[in-house]
Amino acid sequence: MRAILHVCTTCRGVAAEPVEPRPGTRLHQALETGPLPDGVELRAVECLSACSQGCSVALSAPGKWTYVYGRLGPEDADDILTGAAAYAATADGLVPWRERPTIFRKQSLARVPPQE
Amino acid sequence: MRAILHVCTTCRGVAAEPVEPRPGTRLHQALETGPLPDGVELRAVECLSACSQGCSVALSAPGKWTYVYGRLGPEDADDILTGAAAYAATADGLVPWRERPTIFRKQSLARVPPQE
Repeated sequence: MRAILHVCTTCRGVAAEPVEPRPGTRLHQALETGPLPDGVELRAVECLSACSQGCSVALSAPGKWTYVYGRLGPEDADDILTGAAAYAATADGLVPWRERPTIFRKQSLARVPPQE
Repeated sequence: MRAILHVCTTCRGVAAEPVEPRPGTRLHQALETGPLPDGVELRAVECLSACSQGCSVALSAPGKWTYVYGRLGPEDADDILTGAAAYAATADGLVPWRERPTIFRKQSLARVPPQE
């Protein structure tokens, strides 16, 4: 099983003024500091087009539902990896509600059905 | 070239009170009344998890970026099909900015990189 964890590195978060490094870059850095869960591959991406809801990440994999989450920050890195591990362990991307981290229950921006 | 146009049929739109048929179902009905553009396949889906931003639709296809749009209604059906046709005609899902309908420029909820 597998999961691609896309992290928007250009997200400005909710800050009114631009800060460098960008909150999205800081979130990516937080996610890559430790070991990744089995089957999870981290990928930086420039813009997930969820700019008003940044920082944002997406989970996708062949044959699985795609999920996008927002309003995240570097402090959420551990929960994001926990959720990504649960997603990677599924066949279809559908993690039982009670096994999802709270940020994944409450901060979903969208999901899209699997590609055949 | 190809595009799957996923339409959330359970979206309540921005109405405070539930109405039947649901705005998402009405949007789906509006989209299926006429002929679909070449390469565009319409699919109803129960919940795109963008409930606070409904009605919502998603465009996906193998090898292409996935896009999700929100704050839509049955009155947007023609523009959605125009945008879906432009998406279907691309190799990677990236439609030049000036060729996108205004609703696709301004009402993007998220995009996700192609699956390999």
